[in-house]
Amino acid sequence: MLIICKVLVLNELKQITVLGMGILGGSLTLAIKQRFPNVKAVGYSHRESTREKARGMNVADEILDDQCESVAEADMVILATPIRTFEGIFKEISGALKPGCIVTDVGSTKAKIGEWAAEMLPDNVRYVGSHPIAGSEKNGVEFSRDDLFYEALCIVTKTEQTNEKAFKTVREFWEAIGCSVLELNSSDHDRIFANVSHIPHMVAAALINSTDFEEMKFAGRGFLDTSRIASGPANIWTDIVMTNSQNISAGIDEVIGKLGELKDAIAGRDNERIMKLLDAARNKRNELIKFKLEQKELI
Amino acid sequence: MLIICKVLVLNELKQITVLGMGILGGSLTLAIKQRFPNVKAVGYSHRESTREKARGMNVADEILDDQCESVAEADMVILATPIRTFEGIFKEISGALKPGCIVTDVGSTKAKIGEWAAEMLPDNVRYVGSHPIAGSEKNGVEFSRDDLFYEALCIVTKTEQTNEKAFKTVREFWEAIGCSVLELNSSDHDRIFANVSHIPHMVAAALINSTDFEEMKFAGRGFLDTSRIASGPANIWTDIVMTNSQNISAGIDEVIGKLGELKDAIAGRDNERIMKLLDAARNKRNELIKFKLEQKELI
Repeated sequence: MLIICKVLVLNELKQITVLGMGILGGSLTLAIKQRFPNVKAVGYSHRESTREKARGMNVADEILDDQCESVAEADMVILATPIRTFEGIFKEISGALKPGCIVTDVGSTKAKIGEWAAEMLPDNVRYVGSHPIAGSEKNGVEFSRDDLFYEALCIVTKTEQTNEKAFKTVREFWEAIGCSVLELNSSDHDRIFANVSHIPHMVAAALINSTDFEEMKFAGRGFLDTSRIASGPANIWTDIVMTNSQNISAGIDEVIGKLGELKDAIAGRDNERIMKLLDAARNKRNELIKFKLEQKELI
Repeated sequence: MLIICKVLVLNELKQITVLGMGILGGSLTLAIKQRFPNVKAVGYSHRESTREKARGMNVADEILDDQCESVAEADMVILATPIRTFEGIFKEISGALKPGCIVTDVGSTKAKIGEWAAEMLPDNVRYVGSHPIAGSEKNGVEFSRDDLFYEALCIVTKTEQTNEKAFKTVREFWEAIGCSVLELNSSDHDRIFANVSHIPHMVAAALINSTDFEEMKFAGRGFLDTSRIASGPANIWTDIVMTNSQNISAGIDEVIGKLGELKDAIAGRDNERIMKLLDAARNKRNELIKFKLEQKELI
């Protein structure tokens, strides 16, 4: 029943092209091959060696050597390269896209990318933002899996300019490859993900950067968990910071403010206030865990 | 061989009394019963209901109803109650202790406790600080285990006033119940553990306190890990903050400073600087993980 529904909207797609053959791009073409046997799944990577690997692994129906050629016949194009490359790619492919082509991406920030799309893509091409929350600490096409997106959350974002039909198609595309889809406008997306993903990364990095290495040798499980995400790739996170800088700056200020509250309570030797601040955090996090358990996001 | 060695120093102990019958205290008396069959393991709790439970579980050779009576014959007394109670307990038991009695504790901070001991305990009693890094998110005597301290790290701290023989006895006591022991002076201990344990707690609490609950519903594994330790008991952590306030204040300033560096780099749209700061954190943490793997603290 679900699948039949999807076909009604998605059956207009004859070719989907994925630009970037890392773990996300390779997993996308694999999932397209599996879920849409009638759609041609085309891949492109700017690296010859990656194209060779992708061909060897048969992750797509076709891997092309030329970016413009790879998108020329596409009904949907998905950018799965680092965010910093998107502006250039939009420009490079703009002349090669078919009228009515849908362009989306898998970037972790959305508003800036939407601005680039509006500026660089022709008016007869429809951009919709996507942020599938999937991935792995591994990278490279060799880690591609056809089920990487299965049961993952995918945020699909719109602005006032977003074409409704294209939005619906993108939404149903992600659902068809197994995601739970949530809709947000791109500015809400960027504010929320600054707070729940980008700021924790800044905090983890600042914690590590402020701690002496010899002292860190005494670190236990608490320190390691608190700092875990600081081990993420610096180039990917720099792209995120550069394209969501206002929300991230504001979020850093919030955390500094809350650290300041603790510091003031300590300076005043205000036992009750310290307890209140720590207890508030404890209760709020415990509520969050309860919610995540109810949602079956944690077991 | 190891055990014989220990007996040479530890055979002067006829009775060890543990004050406080939570998971730490109950596990201590259980471990003493198991490792030192010739030593009388005595327990005390100020709560009648806890004493009843401890007796029912047979965690100690004897559970007494009176604190002073429980320590009167002890060669070693171990405080395993919340830190905030230590000053009062030192005062209460000071008249009841035998000359030469060794007093230690399991508190997570050390310098302030040492000051209280120096002030409150008689000159013929020897205080040595201990910080076994063991425990569980569970609390209560019903979670006691005789192997809770097995392979745990225990820091034993000294000051200029510390009696060498008592220090050696305490060190060997922890080794005998299965800990890896490290010696630190109490001010180094408090500075190091502020940085690797107490500051991460402040950061986790500030992160939670600065995030809107509705937005937190979008949180993934990264946010949950970064904030995990904020779920720790607020009263225990308030005690830690109140007895290590200078180091914790200084550490909060360091983290605020490093968050400020990131903010400045973002404000200046300095791609290279952001990358450098995030990469420094990543490399430093990866070095730490390498060290922990080499030490077999992580598998």
